[in-house]
Amino acid sequence: MEIQVLQNIFEANVQKAEEIKKLLSNKKVYMIDIMSSPGSGKTTITDNIIANLKPYYNIALIEGDMETTKDSEKLAKYGIPIIQIETKLFGGACHLESSWIMGCLGQFNLDEIDVVIIENIGNLVCPAEFELGEDERIVVLSITEGEDKPVKYPLMFNSSQTLLINKIDLLPYLDFDMDELSENIKRTNPTMEIFKVSGKTGEGMDGFLNALKRRIKAKIGK
Amino acid sequence: MEIQVLQNIFEANVQKAEEIKKLLSNKKVYMIDIMSSPGSGKTTITDNIIANLKPYYNIALIEGDMETTKDSEKLAKYGIPIIQIETKLFGGACHLESSWIMGCLGQFNLDEIDVVIIENIGNLVCPAEFELGEDERIVVLSITEGEDKPVKYPLMFNSSQTLLINKIDLLPYLDFDMDELSENIKRTNPTMEIFKVSGKTGEGMDGFLNALKRRIKAKIGK
Repeated sequence: MEIQVLQNIFEANVQKAEEIKKLLSNKKVYMIDIMSSPGSGKTTITDNIIANLKPYYNIALIEGDMETTKDSEKLAKYGIPIIQIETKLFGGACHLESSWIMGCLGQFNLDEIDVVIIENIGNLVCPAEFELGEDERIVVLSITEGEDKPVKYPLMFNSSQTLLINKIDLLPYLDFDMDELSENIKRTNPTMEIFKVSGKTGEGMDGFLNALKRRIKAKIGK
Repeated sequence: MEIQVLQNIFEANVQKAEEIKKLLSNKKVYMIDIMSSPGSGKTTITDNIIANLKPYYNIALIEGDMETTKDSEKLAKYGIPIIQIETKLFGGACHLESSWIMGCLGQFNLDEIDVVIIENIGNLVCPAEFELGEDERIVVLSITEGEDKPVKYPLMFNSSQTLLINKIDLLPYLDFDMDELSENIKRTNPTMEIFKVSGKTGEGMDGFLNALKRRIKAKIGK
């Protein structure tokens, strides 16, 4: 019985995600879903992305959090449309669901939006199970979390197209083995596009942002 | 309907947790549940705890992971009983449940065990919702994760008795505001016992381990 209901939840989520895909294709909007552990640097990365893309694209932001509007407040400076989802209103959910994203998209004027950024709940497990109709999943891994995460949380790393290895400014102070991480990524998702970055210093962000802009252009034509 | 079923899951979990509490009280066993984000240093902390307690107590370990037995392998050197729960066998669960813990306890000889350590799934959200019958919840927060986690993930910090602020050896290299963290902890859980530690260098671990030993003695009399 539990399994049946869970299956219904997943199926309803996939169905709504398909509707979102069609809507975004129709409206020529590119949507990215940024996921990671708590504290990997998603908000700083999001800040970088908005600062860089804003001259070229109209951006809207969906911020997921268990509680608080701290991340939205940090990014309010850009004056772009932001909707905050506090999942404590949904029983403290550990993930975002496509029906909630559809609800947010309904509040944006999609005719005037080019790129929607979703900052998901800080969690390496649950968000990976819920497709949101996104064009691209970006997983952020801070090097402070260790080399083993791709093999311990394979669904997250399997189902994402882009990996940002973040906080590389801390490399000199950690016993971090980049080769071991690369090996673990290869075993989990050999086709993933990987960028080593520091959201804090901006190092390595150009390569990632140029690739992102290429993919946006391929979909929306600008 | 979904909500009803979810409620059943939580109620069944609480019921089994109560059974575990009685069993552990009867057998004079102290059980701790270590929780955190992925990569906060739970395994290194667990390593420290075992190394320190082993001369005084018989210890058993329950290791939770989505996938892989990496953490168990790291800690096998102590020759203590270890059971690994790979939650991919339970639909990739993002948490541990009390019925699984009961299953593990049934495989230990509790007459000869003083302390059971549970290393939970790396996740700041879901594990907090599932009582396991533990005597003490310890949450590990790496300073690399930022100051805001107690207010963003309040249930985890509310429901834990002990906080280990980990990786303080990295303090000189981060823009980390310890006062802001203290403020956020006070707002979320003012009665929490807090220790600043480095699992890597061992700094600060003595204070935590002495407090832990006092609590164990208060329950099991040695």
